[in-house]
Amino acid sequence: MWKHLVSQLGHVELKTPTVEESAAFFHDMLGMEESARDGDSIYMRAYAEFHHHSLKLTEAPRGDRPDVGHIAFRAHGPEQLDQLVAIVEGLGLGEGWTDGDIGHGKAFRFKTPDGHPFEVFWEVEEWQAPEDLAGPVHTRPQKLPTRGAPVRRLDHVNITCSAVKPVREFIVDELGFMHAEMAVIDGTGEELISLTTSNNINHDVSITKHPNGWSGGINHTAFWYDTRDEIMKLADLCRDYGVPMEWGPSRHRGSELFFLYVREPGGHRIELCTGGYLVLAPDWKTVRYLASENQAIYWTGEIPEVMYGD
Amino acid sequence: MWKHLVSQLGHVELKTPTVEESAAFFHDMLGMEESARDGDSIYMRAYAEFHHHSLKLTEAPRGDRPDVGHIAFRAHGPEQLDQLVAIVEGLGLGEGWTDGDIGHGKAFRFKTPDGHPFEVFWEVEEWQAPEDLAGPVHTRPQKLPTRGAPVRRLDHVNITCSAVKPVREFIVDELGFMHAEMAVIDGTGEELISLTTSNNINHDVSITKHPNGWSGGINHTAFWYDTRDEIMKLADLCRDYGVPMEWGPSRHRGSELFFLYVREPGGHRIELCTGGYLVLAPDWKTVRYLASENQAIYWTGEIPEVMYGD
Amino acid sequence: MWKHLVSQLGHVELKTPTVEESAAFFHDMLGMEESARDGDSIYMRAYAEFHHHSLKLTEAPRGDRPDVGHIAFRAHGPEQLDQLVAIVEGLGLGEGWTDGDIGHGKAFRFKTPDGHPFEVFWEVEEWQAPEDLAGPVHTRPQKLPTRGAPVRRLDHVNITCSAVKPVREFIVDELGFMHAEMAVIDGTGEELISLTTSNNINHDVSITKHPNGWSGGINHTAFWYDTRDEIMKLADLCRDYGVPMEWGPSRHRGSELFFLYVREPGGHRIELCTGGYLVLAPDWKTVRYLASENQAIYWTGEIPEVMYGD
Amino acid sequence: MWKHLVSQLGHVELKTPTVEESAAFFHDMLGMEESARDGDSIYMRAYAEFHHHSLKLTEAPRGDRPDVGHIAFRAHGPEQLDQLVAIVEGLGLGEGWTDGDIGHGKAFRFKTPDGHPFEVFWEVEEWQAPEDLAGPVHTRPQKLPTRGAPVRRLDHVNITCSAVKPVREFIVDELGFMHAEMAVIDGTGEELISLTTSNNINHDVSITKHPNGWSGGINHTAFWYDTRDEIMKLADLCRDYGVPMEWGPSRHRGSELFFLYVREPGGHRIELCTGGYLVLAPDWKTVRYLASENQAIYWTGEIPEVMYGD
Repeated sequence: MWKHLVSQLGHVELKTPTVEESAAFFHDMLGMEESARDGDSIYMRAYAEFHHHSLKLTEAPRGDRPDVGHIAFRAHGPEQLDQLVAIVEGLGLGEGWTDGDIGHGKAFRFKTPDGHPFEVFWEVEEWQAPEDLAGPVHTRPQKLPTRGAPVRRLDHVNITCSAVKPVREFIVDELGFMHAEMAVIDGTGEELISLTTSNNINHDVSITKHPNGWSGGINHTAFWYDTRDEIMKLADLCRDYGVPMEWGPSRHRGSELFFLYVREPGGHRIELCTGGYLVLAPDWKTVRYLASENQAIYWTGEIPEVMYGD
Repeated sequence: MWKHLVSQLGHVELKTPTVEESAAFFHDMLGMEESARDGDSIYMRAYAEFHHHSLKLTEAPRGDRPDVGHIAFRAHGPEQLDQLVAIVEGLGLGEGWTDGDIGHGKAFRFKTPDGHPFEVFWEVEEWQAPEDLAGPVHTRPQKLPTRGAPVRRLDHVNITCSAVKPVREFIVDELGFMHAEMAVIDGTGEELISLTTSNNINHDVSITKHPNGWSGGINHTAFWYDTRDEIMKLADLCRDYGVPMEWGPSRHRGSELFFLYVREPGGHRIELCTGGYLVLAPDWKTVRYLASENQAIYWTGEIPEVMYGD
Repeated sequence: MWKHLVSQLGHVELKTPTVEESAAFFHDMLGMEESARDGDSIYMRAYAEFHHHSLKLTEAPRGDRPDVGHIAFRAHGPEQLDQLVAIVEGLGLGEGWTDGDIGHGKAFRFKTPDGHPFEVFWEVEEWQAPEDLAGPVHTRPQKLPTRGAPVRRLDHVNITCSAVKPVREFIVDELGFMHAEMAVIDGTGEELISLTTSNNINHDVSITKHPNGWSGGINHTAFWYDTRDEIMKLADLCRDYGVPMEWGPSRHRGSELFFLYVREPGGHRIELCTGGYLVLAPDWKTVRYLASENQAIYWTGEIPEVMYGD
Repeated sequence: MWKHLVSQLGHVELKTPTVEESAAFFHDMLGMEESARDGDSIYMRAYAEFHHHSLKLTEAPRGDRPDVGHIAFRAHGPEQLDQLVAIVEGLGLGEGWTDGDIGHGKAFRFKTPDGHPFEVFWEVEEWQAPEDLAGPVHTRPQKLPTRGAPVRRLDHVNITCSAVKPVREFIVDELGFMHAEMAVIDGTGEELISLTTSNNINHDVSITKHPNGWSGGINHTAFWYDTRDEIMKLADLCRDYGVPMEWGPSRHRGSELFFLYVREPGGHRIELCTGGYLVLAPDWKTVRYLASENQAIYWTGEIPEVMYGD
């Protein structure tokens, strides 16, 4: 049930052993712009995003699993930022304030009950296009890139958990997201995946049970396209230029999203998606699938085994 | 600036001298379902809508202009309904409660400062699919219709005014919508069109200056499609079956929507649209176009003269 | 190498134990029109086809395999019809003339070296739209149907063989088709699939080695759509209305076609396709894939096991 | 009626006062590759073309009208080349052999009865991708370009005439093209436009009456896309990067093509198109529109005045 404390998913920090190759992938294939460099990090944004960045790539040695630096949400306002801090402090999940980062003001770090590194901020720097990138369409801050198949904006993250329910309850009951959908095991009713959203987008955080029961991980980061065709064009480019594709282009029954999953050079799974529905009702009834219904499949095929890997 | 008093545009009542022909158009061409009949009215809904109806067609003799019965919004909750009533009563715009209508509970009628017949309600009856229409995709309450080019949901209304600014200020400052975009006359800054939204959809109410300075009218009612191709298919069907088309398929620069405008048999202009952007920022800065920029045109052409007619 | 003896694939006769259910599927889901009924047969055509029919459904008890009645080609002219007859007679493959069928003139039946029932004709009856179906677009003989996701035209057949090479040589060297593509086993070079075409369409007859080595069969009959989106809409409809889907929507690397495979109620596999390339060069060099390249897959996934079944 | 003397439109030479800017447009926006430079000329090809080039840009001072250097067709074989030469020589339209050009063998120049500079050749050099451009899809000789919205192949030319009929009769009766469509003036029956094709593409040469009655000109050169969305993406890019657009994206009723018309920097009108139908029947009956039916318009709008300019 919306509390309107969080207004949107703001940015994701991905750790990569090959920060330059990763940045080249997001720049050349996904048409993203580099908005800053600082130390071991490269900051990037999609063409229709007003914020300074939605993606921070940070150089780090490869561990056992692709490592997410942090996942940042924008509060709904300055008071809502304080309310959120009070809530997570009250739960003993707070980790303290930072002075912020390039592109946004002070931020509060906390953990989900499963250990995911979350952050919340309010003040944000609007990105200003250099003269040669400023265009005639004012509802996006820059011209459409001419490179690859450009993504429009960050869409959602999928985090993996030892157990879905406690994380979902934290995000929904405490942070005030809407519980849009869930898939549960037939009989036991154990949650396998839940889709939650801070706004009308059908989900900006999805929560998945890790097949090995590992906690605090990430399955994928998703970017949005305006059309299915642009996702299929990206798939063509991935085939030609040797970018590993794992699943799709196809369509999920749950969420109704049209999707493609690929791996960026640093090893992170990236989803490209479009379509789906909006959650508009304040009294939305969580849509429920049984695992036996396989809500991941709208059309044909099975979930590829590789999708369960980190 | 969002106050979260209204959660969404709920339904629109269009008066038509040919209620059966109108209903046949929405059923056969736009794939809508009839959910009830009562007296002179036929109630209809699109395939992905959970509410009882989003369109009410009421038989009425043709006047000088296509006549809108009322435009109904759903409150964000029961208290927000009361808050909205207090606000419009305080402004002397209230018209009183009704017991509701088929498909929703008690509703409060009021007028905009320009005289548009608005209504707000909270309680709503969820539509239950008969057995033969219930399908395997649970994020919509029924199977995809097999008729024509089925619309997914009601999207927005465009109302016409003697002056835009007072109506926009009422909707934004009093009802708590976000002011997404505006186009103003070069030099004078007079508002020609403003896009406002109660949620993240880029607009659910657009407000246009009437070319003759007439008040309280409607320019069009818009329904949403998942893909541009389905709108182009509808255009093909309109060409073949003699449905008058006025503009499109094409794309607006403002809103970035892909669109088609047609006339239903009762004389109402219906827009079919998809794409566009979401308004996610609580501190969204209203996007501003000058009339000379012609934000109605993304690609080529001019606004057809016929579009200015009621 | 084109001899221009055959101008196009004309029609396919499928035997079905459930002729009415089959006809309902092609009518309701694929938007085809019934053009005649005669005895145990129903004749159907797609909306953009000028011929009387492209599909003949004939009631027959179900055998071990879905059974094709015959596959008919239109000659390039009356002399070319006679030349074709002389060629197949000379090879001892002729089966004799028939007086024709509803919708076309005299036809000559023959067999491929693997036993497929082929037919060739020249004279054809143009289908005339009844008044209510005649439309304003003169490059197709009727209005776009409002039912389901209407196919534009018959595209190709895929026949299965005990060995591909002799059938391919017959079709290319004797009947004068172009050999567009082939996939061969690594090392041995044995043909697994060959695509051949009588005109510029990238293939109208594809020839596949049967996994069990059986001769004279058919894998699928394919119809053409103008857009990928309409194929994805059909997939949505198949999901909702319980039509079995076997593979797709996805894209083949060989042929570059976007595709979906479904089963009609009588058990025949039907492909829906669009895109691909044209063969324009009279000296076209057959495109060659190795089996290890898996030319069936452009994006992700594997060929579903079920696709190898008849 | 096809004589199969010509197999396809091969390439077009456009004279431009700004050859580098023109080449940059075709390279950056349409994703074409430069295959050679020689003297004042730059040779270019689209990603799916096997020939050395389909476009030759030659530096030339701007005259009164955008100037076409020549329009080249590939014969159907070496004998057909000789037959074509005999035909045009017999009509007194021959201009003699050249040794060919970069990328193709000897060629014969001739004029249409209205003075258009035509050429026919048979021998052609296949373009070989450098190692970094060779890709895994063998039905096109290179990887999909990552720049702009890449065109797949040259599609057709539209030539302008003092009178359509003599040119159409020359192309159909002498060169052996099929007369696919025509639009005629109501009452008089004078041809305004005729679509003709050397193969199954619905037209590779269209012939239009010049509004001023001028002879020997060109209205536009057209390139093919696989999807409508890619054309709409190009329109978005043209809006952002200041490429003049004249008409579309929209759809023609005649030909059923989805189209966009833009101007390249040298002043030539370039059409981008997809869709349409194939001409498969050797006894195709020319589709006839009356001028009053306005076959240029499938959906809404009128032909922009600017489209009649050279």
